[in-house]
Amino acid sequence: MSDRAARLVERLPAMEADAIVVTNPVNLRYLTGYTGSNGLAVIGPETRVFLTDFRYQEQSVSEVDPSFDRRILTLDLLAGVSDVLPADAERLAIEDGNMTVRAHSHLRELVGERVELVLAADPVEALRAVKEPAEIERIRAASEIGDAGLREIMAEGLVGRTEVAVADSLERAMRSHGATGLSFPSIVAAGPHGALPHAQPRDVEISAGELVVIDWGAVLDGYCSDCTRTLATGELDDELHAVYELVLEAQLAGLKAIHVGANGREVDGVARAVIEAGGHAEHFGHGLGHGVGMEVHEAPRLSQRSDSVLASGNLVTVEPGVYLPGRLGVRIEDLVVVTESGCEILTGVPKEFITVE
Amino acid sequence: MSDRAARLVERLPAMEADAIVVTNPVNLRYLTGYTGSNGLAVIGPETRVFLTDFRYQEQSVSEVDPSFDRRILTLDLLAGVSDVLPADAERLAIEDGNMTVRAHSHLRELVGERVELVLAADPVEALRAVKEPAEIERIRAASEIGDAGLREIMAEGLVGRTEVAVADSLERAMRSHGATGLSFPSIVAAGPHGALPHAQPRDVEISAGELVVIDWGAVLDGYCSDCTRTLATGELDDELHAVYELVLEAQLAGLKAIHVGANGREVDGVARAVIEAGGHAEHFGHGLGHGVGMEVHEAPRLSQRSDSVLASGNLVTVEPGVYLPGRLGVRIEDLVVVTESGCEILTGVPKEFITVE
Repeated sequence: MSDRAARLVERLPAMEADAIVVTNPVNLRYLTGYTGSNGLAVIGPETRVFLTDFRYQEQSVSEVDPSFDRRILTLDLLAGVSDVLPADAERLAIEDGNMTVRAHSHLRELVGERVELVLAADPVEALRAVKEPAEIERIRAASEIGDAGLREIMAEGLVGRTEVAVADSLERAMRSHGATGLSFPSIVAAGPHGALPHAQPRDVEISAGELVVIDWGAVLDGYCSDCTRTLATGELDDELHAVYELVLEAQLAGLKAIHVGANGREVDGVARAVIEAGGHAEHFGHGLGHGVGMEVHEAPRLSQRSDSVLASGNLVTVEPGVYLPGRLGVRIEDLVVVTESGCEILTGVPKEFITVE
Repeated sequence: MSDRAARLVERLPAMEADAIVVTNPVNLRYLTGYTGSNGLAVIGPETRVFLTDFRYQEQSVSEVDPSFDRRILTLDLLAGVSDVLPADAERLAIEDGNMTVRAHSHLRELVGERVELVLAADPVEALRAVKEPAEIERIRAASEIGDAGLREIMAEGLVGRTEVAVADSLERAMRSHGATGLSFPSIVAAGPHGALPHAQPRDVEISAGELVVIDWGAVLDGYCSDCTRTLATGELDDELHAVYELVLEAQLAGLKAIHVGANGREVDGVARAVIEAGGHAEHFGHGLGHGVGMEVHEAPRLSQRSDSVLASGNLVTVEPGVYLPGRLGVRIEDLVVVTESGCEILTGVPKEFITVE
């Protein structure tokens, strides 16, 4: 982890900053190992200080990377920042996407005229977007737990069970396979309900002859997985089946477009063109994919407005969908690692058209 | 819920604002009913607008109070704020304790020179601190679920089980009694581990003759409960027993000090004086209590730095503790409603010295 802090320090000149105060809890965990709710780090070329309060004294001993000088303060950690800043620091970067207006104003008073606060533009998120091999292995293991969960509910069957019961069963299965948490509340959405990309499971029984969108993920030791499958519960009319095949074609095209140096907008465009050609342009209202790691949505993005350029070690979802309000939804999502030669798919469950009754 | 928005509007003159943009997700749920991850509300004397994106179109139909005009935008909701502001609005309040520096700067550009952004100082949190009768009933029900959970693990016994196993068992019991979530990851901390006020359960067996701190809470329909008990697992030496009785005496004194008009600092001081008199002033390093509602920590606070004046309908914890590093921890916590005549205790499990083997 001291390597991570060193890589962050390399980014300070680009921010025209002498040091940075890290307040985003996920970034703090990434840099120091700390998982509590109140902490911050001040990091500069010669500075590695971690601040927390009384309540986390012992937890911070066991968690925080020993390269950090740990200090225990009262609840107001910002009050400790100026004490630990190097005497010659004139410009301190803040995480402006995390720090609130109130905290910023408080910190400005505390550091006084001597120190200018500058905006950091997510440098830790940029580091996190390129996964280390050990991080990829953890996400692979989380993804395998997710796969095992889906296999269990496929074996149990869907028809006649409520969406809530299937979601509960999926979550229990993941925990029994070692998940330490869930990436997000699982989605199980049958028939027309599948038209909501963020549907919440209902206390409604799944019928035969529907499409069921299942979107779920396991957390393992702080890292997330994310996957979506759409299962049929019996014979479908040809139109529904055709929508499935269209989304699958788009998903495969998206996967094929991924390589080091590809632009997030271009990759999105390749999959989107398939759906447009199928006549469903207006029914695919979200981006193609997003980074996954310590958060289930992080950098880089694959979307119509993305400026991301893919790098080796990025870990992204590829998840086109078609949503026909009042009728159906289909989404197919894999989790992949960007590699020199294209991408490696971490998701292990099949995605051809499958019927589960 | 339209009543809540009306009460918020009554606070606008004190903020010298013509309208307020609500971005804090918990406050947004309180005011509109919306539980999704991307939404905001603009509220003024003649304005009730709710903004969300494509993904939450159907969810917002079912959740958002019909007194709000719902609008569906792209992901950048701030971009919609100036369109829905009344033409004569000159001062727009923001939730500066929630809005990030980045969002603030973005919104300032979007609303232009015409509109000044002013800091709102938590007006929705102030409304939330005074619970409506229906909110108290929900928290009472959540607290009863918490009580049922503790009774189950007391019946199962503690000695020879790991802290993790007891915590899992407690959480499963709460879910089986109807909890829709947990207020926070449960604490089960035996012996010296109890000295950490925010201990995480370990994979370590609980022995006979220890004190075990158990701090847990159930969520029911968006409202939290919170309770702590410290159980003995067999004969204790006199000193440990005496610490327990001291904390209990402090807790009872704190409860007695609660009444409408009491100051949060004074109530804290009454309990703290008992612990000081017992020679443990430096071993009680946190505040006496905090508000509980949609969040497990909210206004008002009972602490040495609190300026809160208690009002009828406030709902707070009373939870003194004594922590002897490397030796033991004792904390006893009840959840209470402030009433005209004092307080009503919602917690239903006993707190006299109890041995569970």
